[in-house]
Amino acid sequence: MFVVLRPQCPSEEERQVLHAAEVAQLGPKLTTIHGRRIIALRGEESQTDAIPFEAFPGVERVVRLEAPYHLAAREFHEHDTVVEVEGTRIGGGGLTLIAGPCAVEDGDQLMAAARAVKEAGANLLRGGAYKPRTSPYDFRGLGLEGLKLLAEVGAEVGLPVVTEAMDTRQIDDVVRYASVIQIGTRNMQNFPLLEAAGRTGHPILLKRGRASTVTEWLCAAEYVLNTGNERVILCERGLVAFDTAVRNVLDLSVVPLAKRLSHLPVLVDPSHGTGRSELVPAMARAAVAAGADGVLLEVHPQPERALSDARQALRPAEFAALAPDLAAIAEIVQGRPALI
Amino acid sequence: MFVVLRPQCPSEEERQVLHAAEVAQLGPKLTTIHGRRIIALRGEESQTDAIPFEAFPGVERVVRLEAPYHLAAREFHEHDTVVEVEGTRIGGGGLTLIAGPCAVEDGDQLMAAARAVKEAGANLLRGGAYKPRTSPYDFRGLGLEGLKLLAEVGAEVGLPVVTEAMDTRQIDDVVRYASVIQIGTRNMQNFPLLEAAGRTGHPILLKRGRASTVTEWLCAAEYVLNTGNERVILCERGLVAFDTAVRNVLDLSVVPLAKRLSHLPVLVDPSHGTGRSELVPAMARAAVAAGADGVLLEVHPQPERALSDARQALRPAEFAALAPDLAAIAEIVQGRPALI
Amino acid sequence: MFVVLRPQCPSEEERQVLHAAEVAQLGPKLTTIHGRRIIALRGEESQTDAIPFEAFPGVERVVRLEAPYHLAAREFHEHDTVVEVEGTRIGGGGLTLIAGPCAVEDGDQLMAAARAVKEAGANLLRGGAYKPRTSPYDFRGLGLEGLKLLAEVGAEVGLPVVTEAMDTRQIDDVVRYASVIQIGTRNMQNFPLLEAAGRTGHPILLKRGRASTVTEWLCAAEYVLNTGNERVILCERGLVAFDTAVRNVLDLSVVPLAKRLSHLPVLVDPSHGTGRSELVPAMARAAVAAGADGVLLEVHPQPERALSDARQALRPAEFAALAPDLAAIAEIVQGRPALI
Amino acid sequence: MFVVLRPQCPSEEERQVLHAAEVAQLGPKLTTIHGRRIIALRGEESQTDAIPFEAFPGVERVVRLEAPYHLAAREFHEHDTVVEVEGTRIGGGGLTLIAGPCAVEDGDQLMAAARAVKEAGANLLRGGAYKPRTSPYDFRGLGLEGLKLLAEVGAEVGLPVVTEAMDTRQIDDVVRYASVIQIGTRNMQNFPLLEAAGRTGHPILLKRGRASTVTEWLCAAEYVLNTGNERVILCERGLVAFDTAVRNVLDLSVVPLAKRLSHLPVLVDPSHGTGRSELVPAMARAAVAAGADGVLLEVHPQPERALSDARQALRPAEFAALAPDLAAIAEIVQGRPALI
Repeated sequence: MFVVLRPQCPSEEERQVLHAAEVAQLGPKLTTIHGRRIIALRGEESQTDAIPFEAFPGVERVVRLEAPYHLAAREFHEHDTVVEVEGTRIGGGGLTLIAGPCAVEDGDQLMAAARAVKEAGANLLRGGAYKPRTSPYDFRGLGLEGLKLLAEVGAEVGLPVVTEAMDTRQIDDVVRYASVIQIGTRNMQNFPLLEAAGRTGHPILLKRGRASTVTEWLCAAEYVLNTGNERVILCERGLVAFDTAVRNVLDLSVVPLAKRLSHLPVLVDPSHGTGRSELVPAMARAAVAAGADGVLLEVHPQPERALSDARQALRPAEFAALAPDLAAIAEIVQGRPALI
Repeated sequence: MFVVLRPQCPSEEERQVLHAAEVAQLGPKLTTIHGRRIIALRGEESQTDAIPFEAFPGVERVVRLEAPYHLAAREFHEHDTVVEVEGTRIGGGGLTLIAGPCAVEDGDQLMAAARAVKEAGANLLRGGAYKPRTSPYDFRGLGLEGLKLLAEVGAEVGLPVVTEAMDTRQIDDVVRYASVIQIGTRNMQNFPLLEAAGRTGHPILLKRGRASTVTEWLCAAEYVLNTGNERVILCERGLVAFDTAVRNVLDLSVVPLAKRLSHLPVLVDPSHGTGRSELVPAMARAAVAAGADGVLLEVHPQPERALSDARQALRPAEFAALAPDLAAIAEIVQGRPALI
Repeated sequence: MFVVLRPQCPSEEERQVLHAAEVAQLGPKLTTIHGRRIIALRGEESQTDAIPFEAFPGVERVVRLEAPYHLAAREFHEHDTVVEVEGTRIGGGGLTLIAGPCAVEDGDQLMAAARAVKEAGANLLRGGAYKPRTSPYDFRGLGLEGLKLLAEVGAEVGLPVVTEAMDTRQIDDVVRYASVIQIGTRNMQNFPLLEAAGRTGHPILLKRGRASTVTEWLCAAEYVLNTGNERVILCERGLVAFDTAVRNVLDLSVVPLAKRLSHLPVLVDPSHGTGRSELVPAMARAAVAAGADGVLLEVHPQPERALSDARQALRPAEFAALAPDLAAIAEIVQGRPALI
Repeated sequence: MFVVLRPQCPSEEERQVLHAAEVAQLGPKLTTIHGRRIIALRGEESQTDAIPFEAFPGVERVVRLEAPYHLAAREFHEHDTVVEVEGTRIGGGGLTLIAGPCAVEDGDQLMAAARAVKEAGANLLRGGAYKPRTSPYDFRGLGLEGLKLLAEVGAEVGLPVVTEAMDTRQIDDVVRYASVIQIGTRNMQNFPLLEAAGRTGHPILLKRGRASTVTEWLCAAEYVLNTGNERVILCERGLVAFDTAVRNVLDLSVVPLAKRLSHLPVLVDPSHGTGRSELVPAMARAAVAAGADGVLLEVHPQPERALSDARQALRPAEFAALAPDLAAIAEIVQGRPALI
């Protein structure tokens, strides 16, 4: 970290900055280059950030050289992390297909969806038992009963299950019935939830917040990694949009960017990322072409009967037609040097 | 709610929509005007939204006429809600000043801040014991010890305390030591937290999410109101910004807008709303001029020693100079008919 | 268009709306469905929008059923438009590669870039003679001299030239020396420029504004089409971003969306769309996978000597390595029914 | 400017950077602090930016210390600029009210609006003769005839006129009939228009682009100032919004920010800034409280007959009721030290 002093910073104010840095054992070193006074500080961001240099009257600006995350950084972990989920490998090459309904509604709906996606090549089953809904009057999921249905149906068709936990009190049940804990976009910075989920050692699928920077996202991953749990899977799902023609703006550039900055696997959810089923196939293909390690897709046996997000669900036949395209594109792009 | 059918919608698809609406007892009524087929539905949004009409092949669009919230709506609750906190009235005229440090750091810091803001006219003391921080390595608050300091200092200087709860497991302690539970911007859609906080009956200060619409905000308030707790205070604190010259874009137009749509009191936090202390006084004045029922301000006895958000804290003398301006502006604008 | 009246709209206010609609010959028809009063209007948006119904006291809302553009709409023009540029066909299947330096700097630089991209399979040569620059002190292009160099080099290597016009006074020169007039993102709503460019009959490459909706973009295309010029090529180039890790957020979902709404060809510019050369190959592949009719890529023989946008330029070898991937992906996705 | 090299930058790459800086006579000076290699460069941004250091392989990042604008910067021009328009002073204390209809529709409408706003205390008359409209089929203004009406009515009621020029070819006529040339939000970065308008020596009212940073806005002002014309008035008018409950998000924090960074007067347009007349009075009061030098307000004698932007126009009585509030708030806030 460098602290750049103001052009005519009085020496008293300069001393104040140096003193604070010395007390914090940051080894400040003052240099003058071309008339500008600069103070270099030693130490990781976590230490240097402990002093609010930006609030000192003599300081013009602070230049940070390191990312605020370490465990998530590719700089310190060169090889791709592969998260294994009951035999399926996510990351490090290959393509993971996670599919299923937005919400578990009943056993028949879930079984129909699960069989269809399994047959078309899905590797994991998704489905919500606890549903975050904008309005308290909307369908909010079956809760524990939904978890049990997921476990039963997943075992029956032979697919590990991914499902969301919305609160620290739900973690134990989700771990009991599912193989992967999903942290939703609204909870990306729910730090107690991240830590509680992390401590279970279960794989964590971490969706990006819809107004979160890539740095904030990797810091959220760092909360999980910092509990000792290395099984983190990132998932882009669209940013807040000023154009209401789509529900969100799917930011695919974050795929190659996150893969450069981090060693963690990166998935994409084009269903929430667009909110419109007719755009989902094109964006799923684009996600794989951008280098994603897999996609998360909402598939419902009868979208016009879905209790949530009906507008964005694929029909089983649409999913089956899409899967071979994704595999073909993955074959072209994987191993391309520019991806990392 | 109206469902508009596609121009050449086949009669089979029209029947499908009518059938679904009849089964759900929504009393569909079909009308043709100027050649377009429209189906009107009876019932509240909560009922009509239970059928995903947008996913039916014959449907062009759905037009919603009611807001998805009811308890929060001024339409059904004409008079301003006043939330009383230990004798201080928030909303319904008057001006509430809530001030104090971003985080509780130690007893001396908190006492210095509390005395200063009390003397300058503050009505409540703010301070964080549980701090949501982007990086896990930043100072995350004193936790329970911080709550106890808040209670002691608040009692000593005679100010009720507002502090944040980040997780359902923290609610009991926050209620024990503080008068108002703050729900932070990252948790505006943490629905289990909203409901757990609501059920305590304690006043809830609900910050707007930094990428949330006014409808989403009022739906979050509805989660609290729906627990039977009517003591909700809204607080605007800035939206995600594409210009890094400010930390957030403070959206003051939401003040008159929220007051038209809802009966709940509306505060503004210009400290987080700008992230830069030199912009805070101007924006606090503007917030009051826009019709806010009060402001939340970060005041630190020595910002250059603050452990969080130092860049946006006012010094006690700055707060003392600002308070009379806010009172003078409040006197001009209050009672203006255009405010509601 | 439908006008929905307020629930207790007085009959005097209802009459006011009906009267205005009758005077404008919009054939208003009043219907009551489920107690709500609705007025249907006949006529195109251009007529119905002439009356500001939203400003009438009795009106709750106006529901528009048609898009405000007609000539650009696929609804009235089922087949893909193909824009022919000196033998190269843009749109309607196939893949167009447009490549070259951001700015024309001198004859050697341009010739080196042009030869390299031609050899690697580019169909058109891009390069700026008039450069919009944020600061007046930056390099603003060679102007007329740049146009002449483009014409010479394009003829020499056998590539038609695309270049930007920033002002109506530049149109004549651009038409003299180039085959396609580019309208830049800052000028997407420069309506006099759109009409002046349109009237030349030259092909127009219309970049999307960085904060423009798809409707605004197609309305801008409508300005050109309305001059009688049907040779419009759309080009997505990234939206304003709150995360400074990228220069813009490339919105690839607009590719399948624009192709559904319109018959015009859609290109993507991943160079401006990301602003970082290391992300460009992945996003070019993704653009083609999303269904784009081609890509616009900045290629500079020595990016570290570029006078503008050096950070986002590919080297010739990078472009040559990328081109076969794009062709392979195009082969997979083209003809997919979900694209339209 | 400082160039920070990568941690293990090879000496060949370091020499490449130093060489380029020497050739450009930027007097590079290399320093090692705490093991990091930093190169300081002398010269203004305009010179140092001529070399694309960010594109050199050995460079980690470039740190700019100066703003890219100079003439607009308060740093080099301490006192507030006052723009005089036929005896009215804009900036430097006081409050300027600019009011009138969105578009000139006919002589009667304009005269009614002008008389009303004059009587209520307006200092200048606004009205559009050339109207930028999203759709080519909307009312686009009366053109030259509108300019003549503005000149006649302005002279009759005794108010100088502000009106927009959309194209360089309209500048001469606008200068002939109006006292201030408005550059609209869509043209903030129409650089040929900025320069042509600047060269007339006429006062320029420069609206902020709806997705423009404060730096981009001040750079646009720099284009005008750089022609030798010092009579620039800034005007904030709202940013692109993700919440469609308002048309734009009025960013009032840019008022104190722009006044700190620049010496130019800053106005606010709450009519476009909200797009809803019922929010305009509150936001006009807030703008003045934030320290604006004045406001721009749309006033129409009969909004329900307006040919454009009817939804956001005040009625004359509303404007008359608002004006005294604005004066009273201005009296409180002006001269506050925190404003600069």
